[in-house]
Amino acid sequence: MKILEDNIRAIPDFPKKGIIFRDITPLLANPNSFKATIDALCELAIKSDCNKIVAIESRGFLFGSAMAYKLSMPLVIVRKPGKLPWKKLREEYSLEYGTDAIEIHEDSITTSDKVVIVDDLLATGGTAHACANLIRKAGGSVSSFIFVVELEGLGGRETLSEPVQSLIRYKEE
Amino acid sequence: MKILEDNIRAIPDFPKKGIIFRDITPLLANPNSFKATIDALCELAIKSDCNKIVAIESRGFLFGSAMAYKLSMPLVIVRKPGKLPWKKLREEYSLEYGTDAIEIHEDSITTSDKVVIVDDLLATGGTAHACANLIRKAGGSVSSFIFVVELEGLGGRETLSEPVQSLIRYKEE
Repeated sequence: MKILEDNIRAIPDFPKKGIIFRDITPLLANPNSFKATIDALCELAIKSDCNKIVAIESRGFLFGSAMAYKLSMPLVIVRKPGKLPWKKLREEYSLEYGTDAIEIHEDSITTSDKVVIVDDLLATGGTAHACANLIRKAGGSVSSFIFVVELEGLGGRETLSEPVQSLIRYKEE
Repeated sequence: MKILEDNIRAIPDFPKKGIIFRDITPLLANPNSFKATIDALCELAIKSDCNKIVAIESRGFLFGSAMAYKLSMPLVIVRKPGKLPWKKLREEYSLEYGTDAIEIHEDSITTSDKVVIVDDLLATGGTAHACANLIRKAGGSVSSFIFVVELEGLGGRETLSEPVQSLIRYKEE
């Protein structure tokens, strides 16, 4: 989608040397590109057999929220450790150095739920994979993963068991 | 709004003893209450003389995103330190112990901008106040603050110079 390409800014050497960061703030700031993005993400969600939108903190919130609103679907949030106040499940995952974790409220997923997991970016897939594990721990199933941006060549798509869909792809060397 | 009250869960002693946490995850999970919330927030934004929605990380993203989508208005994000990749402005503010900071992209606000600042919760108003300072530093002006939940009695409303609107208020002792 050209309107997406035109509104994603490539920033070299962020957060560290050699990385090209794909900055979505221009996309958010342009109502036409934001609408085109949300509408395209919603089309992908409609084609998935799903009944809930799961958004990953925190840039996933920027897309999952408007999708849930447009589709009139329940919105479930997956957060960084210590943020959710109720009974929760936790999943750890590896980073380049060390580990991180995400959490979900136990009561946010039931055994009949089929969810789409939404985030802004697919890179190595660590967080998305952990998120899918959380959904399964909670008793639900994952219909698909939906991303705005996919960085190809980092193994993200291969890490994930369920279908992966993305609106725009960049080849990482 | 009764549908909001019914879908905000009071959790005692989170994040620490004596605090009643107002959990908005049931509100997100119920499409009717989420729609009612977003529609009511949008009505408040329409009544403000504004041309941009500014959402504060990260729960502000959950509301600002759907508002920007519905209103076809630009969405600007204010983030925790180190997250934004481009040229940015920074504002520090005091916490109970120590300080924190938020950042905004320099180019996200122009001198003709009048914004509404959106977040889920107004407590002491520290973050919202810092956010307004950031908008002014960037050259814009603040039309109003819009919150889903306001905790009265913590001085938040008094801390802020511009009009404050909220959908639901709780009296804190």
